[in-house]
Amino acid sequence: MPTVPYRDPTEDVETRVADLLDRMTVEEKVGQLLVEPATGSVDEVVDTVTSNVDRHHLGQASPFGREDAPDTPEAMVEVANTIQAYAVEETRLGIPLLLISNAVHGNAYAKGAAVAPHNLGMAATRDPELLEEMASVTATELAVTGAHQNYDPICDVGREPRWGRVFETFGESPRLCGAMGAAKVRGYQGDGIAGEETVLATVKHFPAYGEPVRGEDGAVNELSESTFRRMHLRAHAAAIEAGGGAEAVMPSYAAVDGFPVHGTRKYLGDLLDGLEFDGFVVSDHHGVRMLHDDHQVTGSLRESTLAAVGAGMDAFLDQPAAGTYADALVGLVESGEVDEERLDESVAPVLEAKFESGLFEDPSVDLERAKETLRTDDHREVALDAARESMTLLQNEGEVLPFDPTVSEVFVAGPNADDLDHQFGGWSRGDNEDGVSIRDGVAAVTGDETSVTFEQGATMTESRDLDAVARKAASADVAVVAVGESQYIHEFALAEKSGETGEFPTRSQLHLPDAQRELVEAVVDSGTPTAVVLVTGRPLAVADVADAAPALLMAYYPGSEGGTAVAETLFGEHNPSGTLPISMPRSAGHLPTRFNRSRDTDVVGPHEHPASYDPLFPFGHGLSYIDFTVEDLSLSAETVAPDETVEATVTVRNAGQRPGATAVDCYVSDVQSSRVTPVRELADFARVELDAGDAAEVTLGVDVSDFGVRQPDGERVVEPGAFEVQIGDETARFAVAE
Amino acid sequence: MPTVPYRDPTEDVETRVADLLDRMTVEEKVGQLLVEPATGSVDEVVDTVTSNVDRHHLGQASPFGREDAPDTPEAMVEVANTIQAYAVEETRLGIPLLLISNAVHGNAYAKGAAVAPHNLGMAATRDPELLEEMASVTATELAVTGAHQNYDPICDVGREPRWGRVFETFGESPRLCGAMGAAKVRGYQGDGIAGEETVLATVKHFPAYGEPVRGEDGAVNELSESTFRRMHLRAHAAAIEAGGGAEAVMPSYAAVDGFPVHGTRKYLGDLLDGLEFDGFVVSDHHGVRMLHDDHQVTGSLRESTLAAVGAGMDAFLDQPAAGTYADALVGLVESGEVDEERLDESVAPVLEAKFESGLFEDPSVDLERAKETLRTDDHREVALDAARESMTLLQNEGEVLPFDPTVSEVFVAGPNADDLDHQFGGWSRGDNEDGVSIRDGVAAVTGDETSVTFEQGATMTESRDLDAVARKAASADVAVVAVGESQYIHEFALAEKSGETGEFPTRSQLHLPDAQRELVEAVVDSGTPTAVVLVTGRPLAVADVADAAPALLMAYYPGSEGGTAVAETLFGEHNPSGTLPISMPRSAGHLPTRFNRSRDTDVVGPHEHPASYDPLFPFGHGLSYIDFTVEDLSLSAETVAPDETVEATVTVRNAGQRPGATAVDCYVSDVQSSRVTPVRELADFARVELDAGDAAEVTLGVDVSDFGVRQPDGERVVEPGAFEVQIGDETARFAVAE
Repeated sequence: MPTVPYRDPTEDVETRVADLLDRMTVEEKVGQLLVEPATGSVDEVVDTVTSNVDRHHLGQASPFGREDAPDTPEAMVEVANTIQAYAVEETRLGIPLLLISNAVHGNAYAKGAAVAPHNLGMAATRDPELLEEMASVTATELAVTGAHQNYDPICDVGREPRWGRVFETFGESPRLCGAMGAAKVRGYQGDGIAGEETVLATVKHFPAYGEPVRGEDGAVNELSESTFRRMHLRAHAAAIEAGGGAEAVMPSYAAVDGFPVHGTRKYLGDLLDGLEFDGFVVSDHHGVRMLHDDHQVTGSLRESTLAAVGAGMDAFLDQPAAGTYADALVGLVESGEVDEERLDESVAPVLEAKFESGLFEDPSVDLERAKETLRTDDHREVALDAARESMTLLQNEGEVLPFDPTVSEVFVAGPNADDLDHQFGGWSRGDNEDGVSIRDGVAAVTGDETSVTFEQGATMTESRDLDAVARKAASADVAVVAVGESQYIHEFALAEKSGETGEFPTRSQLHLPDAQRELVEAVVDSGTPTAVVLVTGRPLAVADVADAAPALLMAYYPGSEGGTAVAETLFGEHNPSGTLPISMPRSAGHLPTRFNRSRDTDVVGPHEHPASYDPLFPFGHGLSYIDFTVEDLSLSAETVAPDETVEATVTVRNAGQRPGATAVDCYVSDVQSSRVTPVRELADFARVELDAGDAAEVTLGVDVSDFGVRQPDGERVVEPGAFEVQIGDETARFAVAE
Repeated sequence: MPTVPYRDPTEDVETRVADLLDRMTVEEKVGQLLVEPATGSVDEVVDTVTSNVDRHHLGQASPFGREDAPDTPEAMVEVANTIQAYAVEETRLGIPLLLISNAVHGNAYAKGAAVAPHNLGMAATRDPELLEEMASVTATELAVTGAHQNYDPICDVGREPRWGRVFETFGESPRLCGAMGAAKVRGYQGDGIAGEETVLATVKHFPAYGEPVRGEDGAVNELSESTFRRMHLRAHAAAIEAGGGAEAVMPSYAAVDGFPVHGTRKYLGDLLDGLEFDGFVVSDHHGVRMLHDDHQVTGSLRESTLAAVGAGMDAFLDQPAAGTYADALVGLVESGEVDEERLDESVAPVLEAKFESGLFEDPSVDLERAKETLRTDDHREVALDAARESMTLLQNEGEVLPFDPTVSEVFVAGPNADDLDHQFGGWSRGDNEDGVSIRDGVAAVTGDETSVTFEQGATMTESRDLDAVARKAASADVAVVAVGESQYIHEFALAEKSGETGEFPTRSQLHLPDAQRELVEAVVDSGTPTAVVLVTGRPLAVADVADAAPALLMAYYPGSEGGTAVAETLFGEHNPSGTLPISMPRSAGHLPTRFNRSRDTDVVGPHEHPASYDPLFPFGHGLSYIDFTVEDLSLSAETVAPDETVEATVTVRNAGQRPGATAVDCYVSDVQSSRVTPVRELADFARVELDAGDAAEVTLGVDVSDFGVRQPDGERVVEPGAFEVQIGDETARFAVAE
């Protein structure tokens, strides 16, 4: 029997896709666009997937990367191999499944994976190369457990600290979000998606999600057109264009200017066309159903499905997906409301991805390989490097840090000192064992003669034996109190992990609960030098803690190796170089406190907006144990054309006594513009490692086209005139020519 | 000598304006567009104005209605008559001055005026007729003291409680803001501006100011186009179109979509043209200078002036104005950058207003008449009615209110119980004596046998003798504690009145300072039945006070007769009917909590946004001593055309034992729309007075065209489909036909 073209690996992908499409019924095509999540036992997952293969020609499934999904290498490999065998052997055309995970900081729903800090911490590293490496680690750990696509990276700009997904963002700078998102796309996809250790990247949640009104997850984004484009779209665009181009995009639940993205061509397909995106668009969980259920812009599932296709949607993720959308899509094609040609355009990139990933040749994975690959020493080292580089020292009064690792007694306390679930943060398994807690990290980093005592002292919201805390704190030489937030996703959901919704952590409360504040006070009041560690997804309002304790370390959600990184930092083995990617407000009433706020006005005089309205710790803040100096800012040109890049060079010197790294942020402000522009914007950044006494020239690039201003006719123009560059305390100006 | 046409009162105004323009030099024309504020002693004010008449042909002045401006009838009349005589007698053409005040709640910078509640309280009355009457009182009190124009009404929609001007708004409903703003325009202008007791109304701050980012006064409005039009522009449009049309408009300091209104035709002239506005546009104080000083969209005063003229600006208010803009404007006309024809278009409506106001015949005012007219008994009665109707009973646990006016001892406490400055609120004189404080009101309303004891107990931020408070509270039969805010304008400015900027009241803090909360607790802890009165410009976050005290009365800034209104309400002489025009949030972290928020989504299930996220007291809330029932909602049509009005009729019954009034709010929601719409919007409202046992049919109008939805091409279309009407607990639906 001659091999049919689509089964022939020597044919080019285009030919194989066309041949296969030719052979498929409408129902079979529609099946390729359905993404079925599946949770439960291995049998339950297999049953969910195979029954939908039977009934709806299911082409995609998401059996990993969720609460209650298979999470051991054994279970994952068994699920993957069983459902793939079924799809290949028990269907007419033998099309393998595209399997998908939600692995946003390592393959963190897989037991024993190397788990990196969440994105907010990664953004503090100012190190996209390291993030790319970590994404590559994640891709490898995903690929060996059977996944081909990752619903990551998030490129949403975290402009609302009350939002429950801020920890998943790279903070409030569109430049930083774009650069870090792009690094993840490159790390996941490698040089393409042909490799064994790569996965399809999915840039989400396009084009804007990170600024929901009052932090309410999925609420409308109340944005002016200029802010939408300048602050949100830019970040997504950078990631979509990264590497060879992201293979997939997931739209946002949000409505922009009243238009829900899932059903609006203006904010989905048209924008993606403008970015020359040529992958496929997959809906977010029930984002299509939401059009009639929640947004009320359509009247039925059928109308929502039609609106989504019109907007540019290709694939449909929901729970259930197959039963929900299969009939609607088939009906729309049969009625002619959706052309079969349009259907083919959606199916083609999905098939293309399957061909390019080699699934038609062999979709199986190997258990031994999976077990060997998860959290190898190499992988752990990357996660540990990331955790180290993310450590952001907010305050160090009297240079109380670094602590001496040879003291005789260290007291460790707090709800986040010995809780790996909290340390991992959301989008991770519960009951984590494979990682180093802060308590363990301190024990490992301090000397053999040092004893480490411990009291939890508080849960998230309740005090625990403060007498014991006071006693143990008093007898210790130094104390570490790890406070902050528990594990949650979306709007502080998953009650079993984070307490009842409405309790802390919760949307409206940015300050720590009384129990945690009282714990800090009890330790500080003992007189023992105290460092407070914030393990948290969001920039909490910790003015009271900063007043009470001399040292404050922002640890974000640092992942599996976080305890080591925290301990190394507190005890001086690592010099902190983390740099805030988001402003930390004084209180919820001060929101928003973004570094790149629009210029404001002094209506009743310059005393109108006093300094007390500044953030507690600004974007770009981060202390070091080393004095670094930044000098001699020079620009590559005084006058440039609107499409040029200005190089800004400074000399960075390690004026300290030990080696270490520092971040260098380069800000630009548009001195005069036809529209109100931000007071400053991050143009570029770098991370520099220097030995004691060494200096280096660091050159950062100001891409002038980033500073275009949208004209009334919609065109974006870099307007002539002066721009000010700021690095450290150095400033210089260049001009864009007429 | 034959009379020249412009001096001939028998000529029509058009002829007089044309004739006068013909005779004027460019410099003289420019002078008519300059508005000079003047403060200080009578001599200083006269000197400021007359010297600018000499140097710059000054045509307009604002010598009233500001801090440190002349404020006695004697001084105001002397200033008015002196500068008018100078303008008429000492200039070539003898053009009288247009004199302007800032009288936003009565002529409140004039000593002895009748001062009404600020707008937020007026909006609680749901009584535009009464507001129109009060505006007419204000116009009369302004006219007799020499003013011809009032920089009022504010039609900004108060969507940000942190903003220091919320007390000046009619709250968060665009319908309410528009209707109340329109009532003021009618009250100020009467049937035109020809009457002796009328003034030109100035609708401000066009087209949007009430939603500055994080409440920062003058900050950009970060709004989607749909929210801008639906929520902000609508309110201004209603007021501009009111009566014969508002004579003047003042633009907003804000930037909309990055465009500062003072320099942007799209958001000023074009929108006003669309509304067929034919008066003149006067800049806000240094709103033009701000274009280069703050917004940085121009490079110099000259460029800012040119941008403002291009945007549609006619007159220039600043301090100094004349010296600042005269040369710039003359230069722009001489260089041809501004046509003289364009200049004439700006000058004509100013001259027209002067002719129509009869100033060319006699610009003088009479001292005796002024003294007789300020705060007559009639005027006081209108202000008192307004204060009464504004009283909004938020909480009345155990029906502790009304108090018995014949008890033997009433204890009164609080920083706002005996402070007329606080009670008046901003845009008022300091050191007020002419009014009734809450303490005095309680003494007057209670029986002759009742003794009224008093302790301040707290200033805004400091405790005062809480022992005496506890003692006196314990011995009393009932207690009244008046807490809240002091007097301020803009961003809590005027340090001498409100404490240092940054102290309470301040932008970021919506809860009461500890001192005030401790005072409430001390009184409540005495066991004496306690009513807390909130004298405040903003919806403070008073969850703790509501927990502590059984009764809570929102008094807003109730004005000169506020003490009487509060006391009559607490002691049952008046039945409260005030209805919140703005939501009261649980905390600053819950902002925004607007009743007309956009539909949101349940991403992770219906438990995602629990009830704890509701406001503490919602828009539309207000208790009564009477049970009113609302029944039998019927609509005038089941199906209507997009340009029709649906009449919604209910039967309102006073099921109580005494006469009283109640407000009836009518809400509408668009069941399905092409864009995300608000969960509900206020469509109409009424206030009904009923004797005990009586019932009335109340008919409210749903103007269907209010519910148009902007299409992608910019056109606003009322889309076919169902709309739900809600009054009380009754609902009904109508459909808009295809």
